[in-house]
Amino acid sequence: MKNYTHVSLTALFTMALLGCQPTSSSVQKKPELVINNSQDAIISQQLAQKALNSNVAYDIVESLTVEVGPRLAGTDKDIMAVDWAMEKLWLMGFDKVYKESVQVPAWSRGHASASIIAPYDQPLVITALGGSVATPIKGIQAPIVRFESLEELTLASPGRIEGKIVFIDHKTERHKDGNGYGVTVGGRSKGAVEAAKKGAVAIVIRSIGTNHDRMAHTGMMRYEEDVPKIPAAAMSIPDAELINDMLKRDPNIVMSLNMTSENLGIATSYNVIAEVTGSSKPDEIVLIGAHLDSWDEGTGAIDDGAGVAIVTAAAKLIQDLPQKPARTVRVVLYAAEEVGLVGGKAYAAQHADELDKHYIAAESDFGAGPIYQIDFNVAPSSFSQAQHQVSAMTLFGVALGTNDASGGPDVSMMPGLGVPVASLKQDGTDYFDYHHTPNDTLDKIDPKALAQNVAAYVQFAYMMAQSEIDLRPLASSK
Amino acid sequence: MKNYTHVSLTALFTMALLGCQPTSSSVQKKPELVINNSQDAIISQQLAQKALNSNVAYDIVESLTVEVGPRLAGTDKDIMAVDWAMEKLWLMGFDKVYKESVQVPAWSRGHASASIIAPYDQPLVITALGGSVATPIKGIQAPIVRFESLEELTLASPGRIEGKIVFIDHKTERHKDGNGYGVTVGGRSKGAVEAAKKGAVAIVIRSIGTNHDRMAHTGMMRYEEDVPKIPAAAMSIPDAELINDMLKRDPNIVMSLNMTSENLGIATSYNVIAEVTGSSKPDEIVLIGAHLDSWDEGTGAIDDGAGVAIVTAAAKLIQDLPQKPARTVRVVLYAAEEVGLVGGKAYAAQHADELDKHYIAAESDFGAGPIYQIDFNVAPSSFSQAQHQVSAMTLFGVALGTNDASGGPDVSMMPGLGVPVASLKQDGTDYFDYHHTPNDTLDKIDPKALAQNVAAYVQFAYMMAQSEIDLRPLASSK
Repeated sequence: MKNYTHVSLTALFTMALLGCQPTSSSVQKKPELVINNSQDAIISQQLAQKALNSNVAYDIVESLTVEVGPRLAGTDKDIMAVDWAMEKLWLMGFDKVYKESVQVPAWSRGHASASIIAPYDQPLVITALGGSVATPIKGIQAPIVRFESLEELTLASPGRIEGKIVFIDHKTERHKDGNGYGVTVGGRSKGAVEAAKKGAVAIVIRSIGTNHDRMAHTGMMRYEEDVPKIPAAAMSIPDAELINDMLKRDPNIVMSLNMTSENLGIATSYNVIAEVTGSSKPDEIVLIGAHLDSWDEGTGAIDDGAGVAIVTAAAKLIQDLPQKPARTVRVVLYAAEEVGLVGGKAYAAQHADELDKHYIAAESDFGAGPIYQIDFNVAPSSFSQAQHQVSAMTLFGVALGTNDASGGPDVSMMPGLGVPVASLKQDGTDYFDYHHTPNDTLDKIDPKALAQNVAAYVQFAYMMAQSEIDLRPLASSK
Repeated sequence: MKNYTHVSLTALFTMALLGCQPTSSSVQKKPELVINNSQDAIISQQLAQKALNSNVAYDIVESLTVEVGPRLAGTDKDIMAVDWAMEKLWLMGFDKVYKESVQVPAWSRGHASASIIAPYDQPLVITALGGSVATPIKGIQAPIVRFESLEELTLASPGRIEGKIVFIDHKTERHKDGNGYGVTVGGRSKGAVEAAKKGAVAIVIRSIGTNHDRMAHTGMMRYEEDVPKIPAAAMSIPDAELINDMLKRDPNIVMSLNMTSENLGIATSYNVIAEVTGSSKPDEIVLIGAHLDSWDEGTGAIDDGAGVAIVTAAAKLIQDLPQKPARTVRVVLYAAEEVGLVGGKAYAAQHADELDKHYIAAESDFGAGPIYQIDFNVAPSSFSQAQHQVSAMTLFGVALGTNDASGGPDVSMMPGLGVPVASLKQDGTDYFDYHHTPNDTLDKIDPKALAQNVAAYVQFAYMMAQSEIDLRPLASSK
């Protein structure tokens, strides 16, 4: 029988120290919460305390962003990042360090420029969307047609669109959990296909970010077979607003667009993996991941240098324990997340035979904002036991949440394959101010919040590696 | 004898409405403050109230930034801005609208790019400083040498600098009154000369802004006769920090720099002037100015579209009065401020014979943050009378300040020529986050704060145009 203790003042004090608000679920809705204070839980708290006092994670993300910097999948810098990771993990003394090759689409951003040439001559700040084709060498000059959203574009008659540049002007709302991005990302990924089906010659969307910086947000877009491939770009939010102010004056706006981006075929990259070998169940795996690739506009600090640092630093704390936990803790630094979860899919395929040995998986890929909640996706009958197992995380600002976690992009396919996952939810209020822009740089990371992430991940990983709960079968495939 | 009234609760209420804190000088240090409640002062309050309820200023800055946009002195867009201003002022019904030609230096930004090529290959975000020459076509590749400030560069031995790219890494501090900029601007304007004297091949400074956006701040730099002209640029603040993180790892950093900027000789621009003719002293002038030119990276919204809007809207309120004030209120929209106060100096020269008829002058050139204080530079014996004359401004969030005002850039030479000036000091806490960058766009303007500026300027201009105080002679030339 486990021992229990009530939520202590220490928990609230720790949350206050970290600048966290106690959430309704952690304090008001669950006054009955009792905290696991088993020997394992005490070790997990000691690990978390070490994490809070450590600079290891910050040093890792500084090293990656300074010594490598931007590392677009399939480029030379991507391979430099793989080499960096192999050496870094090796020097940190993990029991195993290895890499697994992944075939990734390679793409060159080239140059992108645009301006409004009528009724008022104004330059715009744009960036190519990932995977876009170039314009003809002389560029494209065409009237624009504005849509509120992808949905409005989908419903529009081709007569309004043919020969024009589609402008999707969908505003991304700011939310702690980043939900606004989910609403607008379809315009970025699917807009070119919808526009091209109706005869558009290009698409330039309002950046799907929450900031007001005159920077454009890149991100992946897709083409479809048998639909013309038209150039696709994003403009900065102040530029989208400029165009709206022009439209108030004159509905006839002509844009000039020049892009030299290019798809370069398939290149080889790598998932980089490090392990702390389990002491009694070494073939059973607790997977904590992040993605090593980044977009090429910033230095990939919050997306996803932070995640790389968080899961690596958490695993390093476990590696350094005198007594390793039962299960193996596996750090996976995925290749080519940005260009289509390529590393995550490759991992799932390459480890298909081993997935039944994956006890649980989680990915850190939402910047360096503090973790405020842990959600699971485990067998419904085990959910409350799983929550209790990690309940000492509440002492470090993490509330116990729901049982509908996705686990993160590169492990999002895992529940469908029967593997339990957890989402350690971060405060992403400002995440979409920076991500996928030149502003994704080291200065955007708060070292204290980063350390709190490590504290949460090390508790999670250790307690899962020691857990005696059966987390399967999941209620349904996700 | 004038009537007086004590500071009312209305003042505090108004300040609260505007989101202003009562300053120590308005409330704590001067509990004895009594407010002018003459008929003139009551009219000035009515004008201020109209200003607070008006969108005219916002409409003006929207029109300028949307229909013209960036308007670098000496370019076609500069002339478009002059034409825009002439038409706008004419349509607003001012008694007189005219322009005066000014010879201005013309310069083309061209393209600027830079990267660190050793020890770690990383692209940088830079921009050419105004007036800079180009690099050779093949660019410059050279080691960098870092200095904390212009002062440290000035003291350094040429042996450290010869053949290198100087990097001045002076951090601009955030202050309400923008004082941090004054500390670092010398590195931008004079750094190239100091570096070239010691054999540097180029200079790239840390942007003298207060933000953490990956944008570089432009601004004017100067060469000297007989000192080699070396290319001069600014890098973004995250890039300066990136280089510092590299320097922790390796002192030998090599930069590659390519710039195609070009000085294009002299072009013609114009000071644009509008007047409300005085009813009884039409030859005496209350001058309220702003500058019409802008840098070319943003749309010149806060620098200085806001100022153009503020002084124009204030004068328009006076133009629309049934009974005009005694003196003429003259709006001067100066040419080519950014490239060396060219319009301001030209105005002073062209109006030399009339300067003794300039009762007082002030310029709005610090964005659209609320005005919190009015300073004068008038005869010391008249200072307290001048303060009393405008004391109803305190009802709209403006404290009464000092007698050491500069008046603003384009009127800064006026005190030296015997002309009294005033500075309506704005909260510039975030001004240097945006100015001289691509982020100087319309969305950075808060319409309410802009309207409060108009309220302050209309009170100031009206009360000065009606004043019976002799403001001369000044204590000393500034």
